[in-house]
Amino acid sequence: MKTRDRILLTSLLLFNEEGEQNVTTVDIANEMDISPGNLYYHFKGKESIIDTLYSQYETELLSLLNQSTDKPLTIEEHWYFIYVIFEEIYKFRFFYLNSSDIVLRYPDIERRFRRLINNKVKTVETLCQHLIQQKALKDDLLDTQLLAENISLCLLYWFPYQHLLNPNVDDVTLIHKGVYHVLSLVAPYIDHGNQEFAQAIQALYKENT
Amino acid sequence: MKTRDRILLTSLLLFNEEGEQNVTTVDIANEMDISPGNLYYHFKGKESIIDTLYSQYETELLSLLNQSTDKPLTIEEHWYFIYVIFEEIYKFRFFYLNSSDIVLRYPDIERRFRRLINNKVKTVETLCQHLIQQKALKDDLLDTQLLAENISLCLLYWFPYQHLLNPNVDDVTLIHKGVYHVLSLVAPYIDHGNQEFAQAIQALYKENT
Repeated sequence: MKTRDRILLTSLLLFNEEGEQNVTTVDIANEMDISPGNLYYHFKGKESIIDTLYSQYETELLSLLNQSTDKPLTIEEHWYFIYVIFEEIYKFRFFYLNSSDIVLRYPDIERRFRRLINNKVKTVETLCQHLIQQKALKDDLLDTQLLAENISLCLLYWFPYQHLLNPNVDDVTLIHKGVYHVLSLVAPYIDHGNQEFAQAIQALYKENT
Repeated sequence: MKTRDRILLTSLLLFNEEGEQNVTTVDIANEMDISPGNLYYHFKGKESIIDTLYSQYETELLSLLNQSTDKPLTIEEHWYFIYVIFEEIYKFRFFYLNSSDIVLRYPDIERRFRRLINNKVKTVETLCQHLIQQKALKDDLLDTQLLAENISLCLLYWFPYQHLLNPNVDDVTLIHKGVYHVLSLVAPYIDHGNQEFAQAIQALYKENT
C-alpha cells in the first residue's frame, strides 16, 4: 500500500478510536513509524487529511444514495440498503461522534455535510413516494418530508446516541439495531399488513443479532 | 441578584451562545465585570459551575417528568408537555449542542446524563402504555420501548440537528417544529382517526408557528 493511502487509513482508525480532536499529525506519524516530515510531504496538516477522508466518504455515500432510487425495493432490499448506509457511516463515524465540534472547526466540511444530509433526506423522501405509488405505504401518511427528516435524524445521531448510552455494544449489533430503528419509523405506515411487515423486520432483526 | 446566581446565569448564557468549550472562567468574570478572584470565591473553576448548572437542569427536568405520569393527558396536554421539555432542553442547550465532547471531559456529567435519558425513555414508555390502556393508541404497536427510544433520540438531538441544518431559525419556531416532529412519531399509532389526530397536531403546529 502506498504511504499516502496508509496515512489515510491510519488517520481514519485513530480518529474513530480516539476522537478526531485528540489525534495530532505527530500521533499519526508515530503510529505508522514514519517521520512527521514524511507525513508532511503527503499532507500539509490535519485539515488536509480530514478533507480527503471527507471526500472519500462523500463519494462513497453519494454513489450509494444514487443507486437506491433506480428501481423499487423489497423489504429485504430496504433492510440491506439501510444496513450499507449505516456501515458507511460507521466506517467514518468520527465525523458523527463529534459532528457539532467538527463543523465548527472545519467550515468547509460543514457546508458539504449539510448538503449531504439534505441529499439523504431527499433520497428517503423519494423512496417513500415510490412506496406510496406502489400502494405499499398508506397515502394518508402525515407528511413524507417529516418521515424522511425523522429517518435522517436517526441515521445522523444513532452512533453518538449509542456511544452515550451503550458504549460497550459491538459494532454489528449496533448497526442491526440502527436498521431496526429506522425501519420502525416506516412500519406503521405500511398498508395491508402493518403486522406482517412488523413481523418481517423483527424476524430480520433477530436473524441478524 | 446574588453574585453566585449571576455567575450561573452569565455562564449559562455564554455557554449557550459561544459553546462551552470556547468559554473560560476569565471570560465569565470579564462579562460580569468582576475579578477572577471574586468568581473563584464562589466557584473553584469551570467544572464546578458546569456541575451546578447540570444539577439545576436535572432537578427541573426530573420534576417535569414526574408530573407527567400522574394522570391521562389530552392531545393539547401532550403538546404542551413536550413543549415544556423542549423549552427546558433549550434553556440548557449547550449540554446538547456538544454532548459527546462534554461527557468526554466531565465523566460525572456523563453518568448523570445517561441516567436522565434512561429516565426520559421510561417516562415516554409509561405515557405510551397509558394511551394503549385508554385505547387511544393501537395495541398492535410494534414496540413501546422502540417508540420511546425514537422519541428520546429526537429530544436529545433536535437542537444539534437544527443547529447544523438551519442555523438561523428563531427559537420559538425551532421548539414548535420539534414538538411536531415528536408527535409525528406517535401519530400513526393513534387508533380511531389517525387522520383526526394528524389534523389536530397540524392545526396546533400552524397555530404556534
